Amino acid sequence: MEILDQLNWRYACKKFDTEKKLSPEQVDTLVKAFNLTATSYGLQPMKLQVITNTDLREKLFANSFNQAQVKDASHLFVITAKTNMNQSDIDAYFDLIDDLRATPKELIAPYRAHLTNWVASESENNMDIWARKQTYIALGNLLNVCAVIGVDSCPMEGFDANAYDEILNLKETDYTTSLVLPVGFRHEEDFMSQLKKVRMEESKIVSFIE
Amino acid sequence: MEILDQLNWRYACKKFDTEKKLSPEQVDTLVKAFNLTATSYGLQPMKLQVITNTDLREKLFANSFNQAQVKDASHLFVITAKTNMNQSDIDAYFDLIDDLRATPKELIAPYRAHLTNWVASESENNMDIWARKQTYIALGNLLNVCAVIGVDSCPMEGFDANAYDEILNLKETDYTTSLVLPVGFRHEEDFMSQLKKVRMEESKIVSFIE
Repeated sequence: MEILDQLNWRYACKKFDTEKKLSPEQVDTLVKAFNLTATSYGLQPMKLQVITNTDLREKLFANSFNQAQVKDASHLFVITAKTNMNQSDIDAYFDLIDDLRATPKELIAPYRAHLTNWVASESENNMDIWARKQTYIALGNLLNVCAVIGVDSCPMEGFDANAYDEILNLKETDYTTSLVLPVGFRHEEDFMSQLKKVRMEESKIVSFIE
Repeated sequence: MEILDQLNWRYACKKFDTEKKLSPEQVDTLVKAFNLTATSYGLQPMKLQVITNTDLREKLFANSFNQAQVKDASHLFVITAKTNMNQSDIDAYFDLIDDLRATPKELIAPYRAHLTNWVASESENNMDIWARKQTYIALGNLLNVCAVIGVDSCPMEGFDANAYDEILNLKETDYTTSLVLPVGFRHEEDFMSQLKKVRMEESKIVSFIE
């Protein structure tokens, strides 16, 4: 199937088949795709929680405006964003580059100085917004990979992030819930899957400057 | 090629081959993929400008910290975010749903009331941040589709958004530059294409709650 057919096949699945589960290979593909997400400067200010635990999902469901996909989908993906980005994150990143690439330090020094200056100059609030934006790249990536491998998904901003942070024990960490993505397989009775896609006319959303 | 191979093939291309251009079919696929991007509520608070004009790209290059990919890539994609989201955007959206799906108005009324309440209750600043986040889903989508069809790309946050808005005549509109994405084909001498990917160990970025 071509990529546009796959993207057209995708929709925000509201009713999942509770009997159908992702294979370990499908989960592994999504997890690896998440880690391959492009992020600003490559800093990866995010984490992914893959939740199958039933009790936990019942609690999260109760804090998701009763959207059943949170408990009914095969797996619940929760994408968290890094808070309080600071110099120690930059240091850890350059340690990682050093481990993996062994780039000569003098070559990489200007880049490191740039990032050091950047985290020092931005407000904590701006850094938090920046990190959250990066999680949306991961979402775009995962939605797309789901479609390519024939897995249904439902991107969600509608949940109580504070309650999620509490339930997932994030309060004492430097991460906060940013996005929720149930993944699984559409129920054959989900009438939403049959609806025509609502998209602007291409000429209204795209322009060419030649 | 499998999707993970495609995502591993992708990198932030800094040096493009100035002789190699995207085919009209490749541009069309990316444009259609952009319009298929999932957005919160389906509101599509964004537009895409596809720029090949040389003079314009020289001006944009001068406001992109001299990153040559802005002028050297086959096409320059500029993703703009909607500012000042308001009731008229919600009305236009439900007109579009009505045109395309003809959903009975009584069925859709609660959803419409919810969105109406939402735009009325959020600050303009929060709405602008929300719209910008949505453009990052489009970025994740486009990076992914580029990789799938064998097109190189370079996601960019590093540019003078104010200057871009000036040059692209966005100042009098309800859109502002959010992201820049040169697309084309890697130069065979781009040493970056040969470097090992820098990514956290999977166990550090992904956890499973079973």
